[in-house]
Amino acid sequence: MSAVEAFDAVDVIRAKRDGGVVAEDELRWMIDAFTRGYVSDAQMSSFAMAVLLNGMSRDEIRVMTDAMIASGERMSFAGLGKTTVDKHSTGGVGDKITLPLAPLVASFGVAVPQLSGRGLGHTGGTLDKLESIPGWRASLSNEELTAQLRNVGAVVCAAGSGLAPADKRLYALRDVTGTVEAIPLIASSIMSKKIAEGTSALVLDVKFGSGAFMRDVEKARELARTMVALGTDSGVATTALLTDMNTPLGLAIGNANEVRESAEVLAGGGPADIVELTIALAKEMLALAGQPDADVEAALADGRAMDSWRAMIAAQGGDPDAALPTPNETHTVFAGRSGVVTRLDALPFGIAAWRLGAGRARAEDPVVHAAGIDLHVKPGDAVLEGSPLFTLSADDGARFERALAAVHGAWDIGGSAPANTPLVLERITA
Amino acid sequence: MSAVEAFDAVDVIRAKRDGGVVAEDELRWMIDAFTRGYVSDAQMSSFAMAVLLNGMSRDEIRVMTDAMIASGERMSFAGLGKTTVDKHSTGGVGDKITLPLAPLVASFGVAVPQLSGRGLGHTGGTLDKLESIPGWRASLSNEELTAQLRNVGAVVCAAGSGLAPADKRLYALRDVTGTVEAIPLIASSIMSKKIAEGTSALVLDVKFGSGAFMRDVEKARELARTMVALGTDSGVATTALLTDMNTPLGLAIGNANEVRESAEVLAGGGPADIVELTIALAKEMLALAGQPDADVEAALADGRAMDSWRAMIAAQGGDPDAALPTPNETHTVFAGRSGVVTRLDALPFGIAAWRLGAGRARAEDPVVHAAGIDLHVKPGDAVLEGSPLFTLSADDGARFERALAAVHGAWDIGGSAPANTPLVLERITA
Repeated sequence: MSAVEAFDAVDVIRAKRDGGVVAEDELRWMIDAFTRGYVSDAQMSSFAMAVLLNGMSRDEIRVMTDAMIASGERMSFAGLGKTTVDKHSTGGVGDKITLPLAPLVASFGVAVPQLSGRGLGHTGGTLDKLESIPGWRASLSNEELTAQLRNVGAVVCAAGSGLAPADKRLYALRDVTGTVEAIPLIASSIMSKKIAEGTSALVLDVKFGSGAFMRDVEKARELARTMVALGTDSGVATTALLTDMNTPLGLAIGNANEVRESAEVLAGGGPADIVELTIALAKEMLALAGQPDADVEAALADGRAMDSWRAMIAAQGGDPDAALPTPNETHTVFAGRSGVVTRLDALPFGIAAWRLGAGRARAEDPVVHAAGIDLHVKPGDAVLEGSPLFTLSADDGARFERALAAVHGAWDIGGSAPANTPLVLERITA
Repeated sequence: MSAVEAFDAVDVIRAKRDGGVVAEDELRWMIDAFTRGYVSDAQMSSFAMAVLLNGMSRDEIRVMTDAMIASGERMSFAGLGKTTVDKHSTGGVGDKITLPLAPLVASFGVAVPQLSGRGLGHTGGTLDKLESIPGWRASLSNEELTAQLRNVGAVVCAAGSGLAPADKRLYALRDVTGTVEAIPLIASSIMSKKIAEGTSALVLDVKFGSGAFMRDVEKARELARTMVALGTDSGVATTALLTDMNTPLGLAIGNANEVRESAEVLAGGGPADIVELTIALAKEMLALAGQPDADVEAALADGRAMDSWRAMIAAQGGDPDAALPTPNETHTVFAGRSGVVTRLDALPFGIAAWRLGAGRARAEDPVVHAAGIDLHVKPGDAVLEGSPLFTLSADDGARFERALAAVHGAWDIGGSAPANTPLVLERITA
C-alpha cells in the first residue's frame, strides 16, 4: 500500500453507479489498487454490481481488460516465426472441439497455443479430457511450450497462474457476489487471459442454449460482439461464431469417451455436428492465419490432422495408442416408445455426467476419467420402443440414481422430426 | 458460522439484482448471517449496490429494518408511566434544535429520550455541542436514563453500542463502497436505531438543500415518505417535516455558541428560524403524544422550558450557569458593499466551521468547543458596506485561512431582498 493513492475507490464506484463513464486513469488505478489489496473486496464487489446493472462503454471494457493484462506477465510468440491463432469456447456439454481442432489447424503450419483450464460444474474441461490419455501431462514450462509450438504446432496445456492475476481474484469475487453475469466483466475476464497469452488471432465459439453459460441467444450475441470489439481494439484479429448448445455436442459426454470421439473425427469419421463445428472453426482460424482457402476437409480425410494429433499427444508424454480407461459399471436407458427423438436437453445431461464423476464440484476435486454418458441417438433420429437411448458410465453404480434423476424428463420422443436448427447460427466479425 | 445455512447469499443478491423482491425469510437470514460474519462484506456490498440501483419494496424495507433491530438489544420504556416521543434530524449546519426542543416538549410531562450521536463531517453532533457545558456527561446507564426520563423527562445522551449492531457494520461498509445514498438503506439505518430505542412516537426533521445530506428536495421527500411508512409499519407513530437547509439554521455554527443560542430560545428569545422550527417540531411531537393543543409558545415565554433545560443539564452533571468556553482568536469578515444579503450557503459555512475545529474528520478526533462561526446577518437582512457579516472563532489563528477559503463566494449581497422560501416546506404523515 502506497502512502498516497492517485484516486479514491468511492469516486470510481459512484461514477459507475450514477451511469457515468469511468476515466481511463481511474479505471487503471482501480484494477491496479485492487491487485495490490488497497481497493477492498467489498469495494470491488460494489463496483462489479454497478457494472452489471449500468454496463460499460467499449472504451471502458478495453481499458479494464488492458489493466487486468498489466496485472501479470504477458507472453509473446513473436520470435516463433509462425502465425499463432487461438480458439476459445464459452463452454458447453460434450464440447471436445479443441481436441480435433488444434491438431487440424496446426497441420497447416500454423501455431495453435491452446492454454486451457479444468472443468467446474456441468461443463467439462479440456485438460481433464486429455488427462484420460496415459502419460499425458498438462503442465509445460514456457520453453517447452515454445518448442512444441515450433516443432508440432499444436499445444493444449495449462495456463500459467501468472497471466492476469487481477482477473483470477476478481473472478473468485464475482462468483460469490452475484456478479458473474455482467457481460463487460465476462468479456474482459476471457479476453485478458487470451490476449496475455500472446496470440495474434482468436476465434471465439460463443454458445447459447440450455447447456451454455448464456441461455439466451441475445445475451450470447451481445457477449460475442463485445469480445470481438475488445479483441479488435486490443490488436488481436478476432472472429466469433454463435453456436447452438441446446443439445450435447456429439455423442460422448465425459472425458475418456470424448477423447475417443475426437480420435474418430481425426480419423475422418465422427458425429456430423462435431465434424461440422470443427471444420467451421478451423476455417475461421485459418482465414485469420492468412489461409482462407485451406482445404480443411482434406486434412481430416487424408490423415494429416491425425498425424498432428499423435505428435501433439506424444510431445506431452502421452501415448496416442494406449488404451483409455473404461468404467466399472454402466447403465443403459431404453426408449419407452417408438418415434423420433425431438429433444435431448444439454444441461441435464451435463449435470448427469458431472454427477457420474466426469466433472468436479470444487476446484481441488479429482475427476473420474471413465465416467460419463454415451448417447446412442440425437434429436432427429428415429428410435424403436426398447432400443437404447443412452448409457451411463461410472466407477460406482451408486452414482446412477442421482444421474438418472438429473436427466428425468430431459428428452422427448414424438411422432415427427423436430424443426432443423442450425448449429452455427451467426458469424460475428469486427 | 453454523454448519448448514438456510439460504445462499448469491441467491438473495441475484433476486435483488434482477429487480425482484427478496422473500422475508431470506432477507432476515441475510442480515443475521451478515451480523454473524457468514455473509461477507463483499457480498453485502454487492447487495447494497443492487438495492441502491433497483430499490426495495415497502415490505422489504420493513423486514430489513426489523432484522437490523433483531441483531441487537431493544429498549423499552413501557414501564415508565409516561408517553415517550423522539425526534430525529437528518442533519444540517447550525442544527441545534434538539437542545431547546427536548426540554420544551418534556415540560408538558412527556418523556423525550434523545439518544444521539457525535458529529462527523460538516454537520455537527448534538453530544459535541452539549459537551461544551462544564461537567455535562453524555454516557448514561440504562438505569440512569430511565430515572432521568421519569424525573426530568428530557434526556440527551449517547446511544448504546448494543442497538442495531448490524446497522453499525453495514453503515461502515456503505461508507467505503459508494452505497450510502440508497434511500431504503438510509431509512432502515435511521429507523432501526430509533425503533430499537423503544420510542412510541417519532417526529422526523428531513432536511433538503446545500447543507443537508439530501440536496435534492425530491430525494428528501422520498426519504421522508419512506421513513414515515416504515415507522408506521413498525408500530411507531411517525410524522415528518421537510425543512430547508440551504442556509444555516440560526446565527451560531459550532458547539458552545450553539448552546448559547439554544439558551436564548429557551429564555423566550433567539433567532426567528430556530424559534419557528423548534415550535413546529414541538407541536408535532406533542400531537403524537396526545396533546395536539399544547401551548408551546407559552412554555417558551414563561420559563417552563428553561426550567426543564436546567434540570436536564444538571441531571447529567452539567452546570447550566457555568461560563462556556471562549475562543483564543476571532476573525471578522465585513460587507464589501451595501445591499441586502441574498444568499448565505449552508454547506461552505458548515465546512468552514469544521475546519475551524468545531467538527471532526475521524470519529476518534476531539472537537474544539469554542470554535465555530457566528453570523451577524442572514439572507434578507440589509447591510451597509463595512458592517460585519460573520465572525470566525478558533483556538489557533492558523485555521482561519482554510476556513476563509471554504466560504469564498458562499454569500451574495444584492440590490433587492431574495424571494421568501418557507423553512418548513411540507408535513408528511402516514
